[in-house]
Amino acid sequence: MAICDNVGKTEAGILTFAGRNTVELAEKYGTPLYLMDEDKIREKMRRYKNAMKEYFGPESGPLYASKAASFKRIYEIAKEEGIGIDVVSGGELYTALAAGFDVSNAFFHGNNKTYDEIKFAIESGIGYFVVDSLKELDEINREAERQKVKQKVLLRITPGIDSHTNKKIATGNVDSKFGMAIATYQAHEFTYAALRCEWLELCGYHCHVGSQVFVADVFEDAVDIMIDFAVEIKEKYDYEPQILNLGGGFGVRYVKSHPELDIEKSIRDVAVALEAKCNETGLTKPIILMEPGRSIVADAGMTLYTAGVIKQITSFKNYLAIDGGMGDNPRFALYDAEYTVLNASRAGKHPDYICSVVGKCCESGDIIQEGVNIAKPQKGDIIAVLTTGAYNYSMASNYNRIPKPPVVMLSGGEDYVAVKRETYADVIRNDV
Amino acid sequence: MAICDNVGKTEAGILTFAGRNTVELAEKYGTPLYLMDEDKIREKMRRYKNAMKEYFGPESGPLYASKAASFKRIYEIAKEEGIGIDVVSGGELYTALAAGFDVSNAFFHGNNKTYDEIKFAIESGIGYFVVDSLKELDEINREAERQKVKQKVLLRITPGIDSHTNKKIATGNVDSKFGMAIATYQAHEFTYAALRCEWLELCGYHCHVGSQVFVADVFEDAVDIMIDFAVEIKEKYDYEPQILNLGGGFGVRYVKSHPELDIEKSIRDVAVALEAKCNETGLTKPIILMEPGRSIVADAGMTLYTAGVIKQITSFKNYLAIDGGMGDNPRFALYDAEYTVLNASRAGKHPDYICSVVGKCCESGDIIQEGVNIAKPQKGDIIAVLTTGAYNYSMASNYNRIPKPPVVMLSGGEDYVAVKRETYADVIRNDV
Repeated sequence: MAICDNVGKTEAGILTFAGRNTVELAEKYGTPLYLMDEDKIREKMRRYKNAMKEYFGPESGPLYASKAASFKRIYEIAKEEGIGIDVVSGGELYTALAAGFDVSNAFFHGNNKTYDEIKFAIESGIGYFVVDSLKELDEINREAERQKVKQKVLLRITPGIDSHTNKKIATGNVDSKFGMAIATYQAHEFTYAALRCEWLELCGYHCHVGSQVFVADVFEDAVDIMIDFAVEIKEKYDYEPQILNLGGGFGVRYVKSHPELDIEKSIRDVAVALEAKCNETGLTKPIILMEPGRSIVADAGMTLYTAGVIKQITSFKNYLAIDGGMGDNPRFALYDAEYTVLNASRAGKHPDYICSVVGKCCESGDIIQEGVNIAKPQKGDIIAVLTTGAYNYSMASNYNRIPKPPVVMLSGGEDYVAVKRETYADVIRNDV
Repeated sequence: MAICDNVGKTEAGILTFAGRNTVELAEKYGTPLYLMDEDKIREKMRRYKNAMKEYFGPESGPLYASKAASFKRIYEIAKEEGIGIDVVSGGELYTALAAGFDVSNAFFHGNNKTYDEIKFAIESGIGYFVVDSLKELDEINREAERQKVKQKVLLRITPGIDSHTNKKIATGNVDSKFGMAIATYQAHEFTYAALRCEWLELCGYHCHVGSQVFVADVFEDAVDIMIDFAVEIKEKYDYEPQILNLGGGFGVRYVKSHPELDIEKSIRDVAVALEAKCNETGLTKPIILMEPGRSIVADAGMTLYTAGVIKQITSFKNYLAIDGGMGDNPRFALYDAEYTVLNASRAGKHPDYICSVVGKCCESGDIIQEGVNIAKPQKGDIIAVLTTGAYNYSMASNYNRIPKPPVVMLSGGEDYVAVKRETYADVIRNDV
């Protein structure tokens, strides 16, 4: 049954998550409910940190990609685990600062940072910008001058790799809203321009190959292309990168048919490729950063719902409606994303009921998952959707004016609220 | 240029909306900015109201479907215009109540109303429930008994019509999470059960054929099927419906290639079909309700953005990045929804720049529209996305922790805030 080792069941056949009885948690906090397994988050952060330091060297390490799940507590955990972060907006930066995170260890991404964001980030002492375009380079340089700060930057380079993933989340192609492409020589021009910016310190390059990548060879290709690029730049402009940030993309096992990523092996494979490539080209081996976001938090998350209407359309199919939907998890509506769904109240029972698990939004596309096979549900059963730690809370909306669920953290047998449940009053708070 | 008669330009070539200079509004309120043309909303509400009263009879009329755009001010407008509403959640009901709307003129929809919602709605004096399933019928009956209220209800019936629209928004098919199907005889059983509920007053039926319907014949088919059903029920159980609610679905012209719906003619066509069908079958002509939501508010809305990074990928394509994205308008990401995009700052110029208009979210799928042809933009230009009054604010998220834009209403040359802009502090408000 288990997709991840933090999922199990009690002797009485109740689903457990992080060793906790999910039905009891649903009773305590109500549903819909986002659960986050803090110990799993810490374990993943450590595994990335340790493997990257071991294979890439002591200054290398992971950055937590905020966009997967951004709320104050997550930054406290990253801080305690001693890993850096990336942020993609003023809002994520604001959240990290509110949590007391030292943002000198933060990287500010984004294809279209606003002036207000650039100003705010420099004022806040952001460690690095990952600069996305020539115009932005100029804008950051001018603002750094205004604030009399020598600002560290990386350049977002588009390596031109197709990671064979869902088009919407493949970002390494040449035709991308992100970065400047090597293939078009715009990346070279970009680097030249950065080196001439008086108030910027160019620290290296960033690339991103896509999402849900399970094979290290995509990253090995990226290393190959990026080191070749760095060598060209070295020859032309006598500049060597201190840092090479390979971005995020490590895959997550949402359903049984997905492979399980061997984090340590994948990192070692990339490190071997890097070592060989640097030896071959004579480039000084850079510090390697990676940005696992999804991979750190996805299987640390589970969403609990209560089964509501169960509808059998004679000679068509069955519908199980739960008390959440595309508001708290829009990923099926957006990407036909796969999820494992279980009847938490009857985890000991044989799954023999095939149904579409749908939400309560007034929209036919409000589907959590189609063709699920679960233990036959009764109204009131707790229904668990696994692996919802990434891009569920962070993408949640108030569609149909439904308040967002709370985020409850589980750690060492304890549970506590990290994000409070929205109330109706919260939802209309800004209505005049 | 105009998709709708509330769009124009000044002599100096600046885009106007509801007669107002959009660049000045962007300066005053900042971007991203949702504008809503209150006069257009009122005009549409009146057109539906007048046409429905004229063609279907004085007790017939439109209900404003909240889900298209729900905030306090919209309910004040509906109240002033004397039209009813539908709500699909406790949150929408709460918003309407907070605006002082008399909810005895409200219909509560939804495929999976929670017990808390049912209790709250009856306590609030909701006019009608549109009951979706047998289980819910029983639950509402029991709660009505507990509160000693004779509760009026309609039954959601699935007529089995394919409206040839986007699958995600087609809800009249037999295989639907909504309602009970005539084709499977579940609708008959449903009606029988409703008639036996002591605390419920069955007032009639509801059906919904889909969205973006431009031809009255879909509604005529619905009338045909629903009246035949009502006749069967009359013969079997001696019950005639007082009300037939034909749901929403009237189409909106998002781009020039979309037809323009003739509201009055469409309603008249449906009325003629109804009249004929009732004469033919001998059924007493019911009160007709319809639920235009999108059609009332869509072209009353416009979103203004500021042009940021403009990127030309050599021999690929151009990207125009704006300061919003899938957070404030997820409809391209969800449905490949079409929109008309204009360069508001250069509305007088010939459109000769083809680009993808993309957002600032850290996601390749964060696209507002592909292959747009606009007057060549400069950074800082105001970019207008038209017809965003429906399902933009209502579906907005804080993805990437980006605060939601404000809703500014325009009326008779005046402008005022209906929903305040979210702040970063708002976004982290519930973080512990």
